Amino acid sequence: MIEETELKEEEFERLLDERRFKELRLILEGMEAPDIAALLGDAPIEKAVTAFRLLPKATAVHVFDHFDAAQQQNLLESFGNQGVRDLLGAMEPDDRADLLEEVPATVARQLLRLLPAEQRRVTMELLGYEEGTAGRAMNPNFVELKQDMTAARALQRIRELQPGKESIYESYILDGQRHLQGTVSLRDLVLAKPETSISEIMTPNPRTVTTGTDQEEAARILRDNEILAIPVVDDEGCFVGIINWDDVADIVEEEATEDMYALAGISGERVSGPIRASLQNRLPWLSINLVTTFLAAAVIGLFESTIAKVVALAVFLPIVAGQGGIGGTQTLTLVVRSMVLQEVSGRKSQLRLLMREIGLGLIHGLLMAVVVGLVAYIWKGSYMLGVVLGLAMLGNMVIAGLAGAGIPLLMSRFKIDPAVASAVVVTTCTDVGGFFLFLGLATLFIKLLV
Amino acid sequence: MIEETELKEEEFERLLDERRFKELRLILEGMEAPDIAALLGDAPIEKAVTAFRLLPKATAVHVFDHFDAAQQQNLLESFGNQGVRDLLGAMEPDDRADLLEEVPATVARQLLRLLPAEQRRVTMELLGYEEGTAGRAMNPNFVELKQDMTAARALQRIRELQPGKESIYESYILDGQRHLQGTVSLRDLVLAKPETSISEIMTPNPRTVTTGTDQEEAARILRDNEILAIPVVDDEGCFVGIINWDDVADIVEEEATEDMYALAGISGERVSGPIRASLQNRLPWLSINLVTTFLAAAVIGLFESTIAKVVALAVFLPIVAGQGGIGGTQTLTLVVRSMVLQEVSGRKSQLRLLMREIGLGLIHGLLMAVVVGLVAYIWKGSYMLGVVLGLAMLGNMVIAGLAGAGIPLLMSRFKIDPAVASAVVVTTCTDVGGFFLFLGLATLFIKLLV
Repeated sequence: MIEETELKEEEFERLLDERRFKELRLILEGMEAPDIAALLGDAPIEKAVTAFRLLPKATAVHVFDHFDAAQQQNLLESFGNQGVRDLLGAMEPDDRADLLEEVPATVARQLLRLLPAEQRRVTMELLGYEEGTAGRAMNPNFVELKQDMTAARALQRIRELQPGKESIYESYILDGQRHLQGTVSLRDLVLAKPETSISEIMTPNPRTVTTGTDQEEAARILRDNEILAIPVVDDEGCFVGIINWDDVADIVEEEATEDMYALAGISGERVSGPIRASLQNRLPWLSINLVTTFLAAAVIGLFESTIAKVVALAVFLPIVAGQGGIGGTQTLTLVVRSMVLQEVSGRKSQLRLLMREIGLGLIHGLLMAVVVGLVAYIWKGSYMLGVVLGLAMLGNMVIAGLAGAGIPLLMSRFKIDPAVASAVVVTTCTDVGGFFLFLGLATLFIKLLV
Repeated sequence: MIEETELKEEEFERLLDERRFKELRLILEGMEAPDIAALLGDAPIEKAVTAFRLLPKATAVHVFDHFDAAQQQNLLESFGNQGVRDLLGAMEPDDRADLLEEVPATVARQLLRLLPAEQRRVTMELLGYEEGTAGRAMNPNFVELKQDMTAARALQRIRELQPGKESIYESYILDGQRHLQGTVSLRDLVLAKPETSISEIMTPNPRTVTTGTDQEEAARILRDNEILAIPVVDDEGCFVGIINWDDVADIVEEEATEDMYALAGISGERVSGPIRASLQNRLPWLSINLVTTFLAAAVIGLFESTIAKVVALAVFLPIVAGQGGIGGTQTLTLVVRSMVLQEVSGRKSQLRLLMREIGLGLIHGLLMAVVVGLVAYIWKGSYMLGVVLGLAMLGNMVIAGLAGAGIPLLMSRFKIDPAVASAVVVTTCTDVGGFFLFLGLATLFIKLLV
């Protein structure tokens, strides 16, 4: 185990000020990439650039990956052009495409100019595919073998090519039209008898995805089949690249982030991005929510005369709505995530889930109803207020279960991503439902309340 | 590309009823594991068992993984013991440990009895480690090589061992005390000249984790270092197993689910689990939330006499609180996720983030204030009501930014997982703050409102 070296910011800056580069380089070499990135990210830019140049090339690329977009851009702008060229040249094409997409267009153009022609072509091609597709996530580097090679010859060929760890573990057999005929893993090549022909050990007609396939689906297929790379073909069925094992965790993480943000009404935002982007990103959701809270307000407005008679009713409004909202959000989050993880499939299990959540709402509602009813009775001394509040609570928890499970299931039936906008619909249901039940019941029993 | 075969439930049951097993087996072989699982999951249990027995062993294990816990248990209970033994024997030890943990203790004991002694020992050992640790996630199968072997001899040894795809890609060199001396990847073995000694190409003193390390950290180290497996050592530093590339995506997914659920106030629940577990899981959160909504209600209670004078105030309560709640949740979700993804590190960037979110709250607040102020003025015809509502909205959006970013940052400073319980604290701040600002201002300017 490499011992981790702690380096305080003050000491780091002192070493740089005193130009003790050799000492600093040794210390940095003993640190993990994320820690170096944190250290450099907090330092003044000219010091960060100097320290960055001290890093071994392989470490530098990892550290660079751990910077946020703003820091990456800062660093690139502070570099001489040769430095930038070296850094970009050492990155894998798909990582490079990711970077170029995140920097502003002017910087991206400038960076692309610095790339050697071949790398520029590859990057441009990758950039042509939409964000989130297999085409964008794929790596165009791969090992091509011939059907009639022996396992020994294939291993010799791989030894000549010296492929990187992203492309060595699965090799591909193509025909004259670059259609995929089969795939063979490094494991199969190593374990086979040396004289075995590739055609005997290859997996013929392997599962592929197209450049337009959602990267999430590509990742799922890769995981389900427990392979180290999945081949990507274009619209004509020609083999164009692979998605690697090391991209899969990134994709899973990215998609989970997307769902989490969608549930909270934000999307594609980064904490380090420009304020303007955050405003544009969150305002639509805030505006939609504003409309729905006015809807809830309008429901209260219907019962203004009831509240005028029993002002204490106003005090309990947030309790009915708040508990319903939390209950609905619990159900919604569980159902949406379970759908993504494919734990719910088939009509029967969907229906079972809906009934289950309504049942849970009923049980939770009964428990909550007793508690809030008692508290309201003790607090305000009106047993009828307790009854009305308890009944409204019971009803609203059932609404929470029904809406929290029913709405995402319904949305998926209509092929709408259930993570998007479900939350606002569910809380609108519990707000409007809760206020209507509580104030409606109060109006019905107004004679017993005043 | 394998063509996917669609099989309707009716046709599936008909084939089984007519005992056309060979035909059915052919169709099932052309389908993906998740689709087969969905099909079998919806079928009556005796049909599911029959169809399951038709599957090739490797497919059966995948299909089994796609069942939920209840379905897995059902199936196992309906199997003859020999069938169960075959199925468990074919699973990787870490997958088996996961399964045994999910089935009830009586079933788990019964299953363990069915395992051959060696497999039972391995599974028991895995089960001894806590859920979520590297010890639990690790696979105890690995390839051991000697320092003085040549690359050619090492490859020959691997060919003799015929390791599975979970353990072939990294090999380990141990000393007499089973301390790890180095690791060598299959790539390095294949690319090296055949006569090279292992000691020349191995990575000496590789990065390791201990059995008690959080599996999330193990996954992050594996991803950062772009290796296919990370070694796990016990408290005495002895090598005990590896965490593989194919576990990493599962771990990332699991941890994201955990965070997502924590934000919504649920934890470790499965849609297919027993109702009782769901109740126990959600009730604490609902109860805590109930206390906080009573706190919000108490704030309204302070101003009952103000509401009695201007009943219209009650109508606007959900607007101030609702918008603040949404704004706070947006900020909270973004900040918590960014902390998990290590996009925020170091005091400076944390402070920058806090200022940024307060600033955003201010801008959102100003925009919302104008809109709600105007609507209130037009709706109720009181300009002062519009001013009071607008000011409260502005203030509450700033509170939302401050609480949404400040609370998780503060919690992480005290080493508390910011995903847990942050949401309830943030919405309590916006509820209490919103009601206090709105009704407090209304009380101040009561003469201009009536």
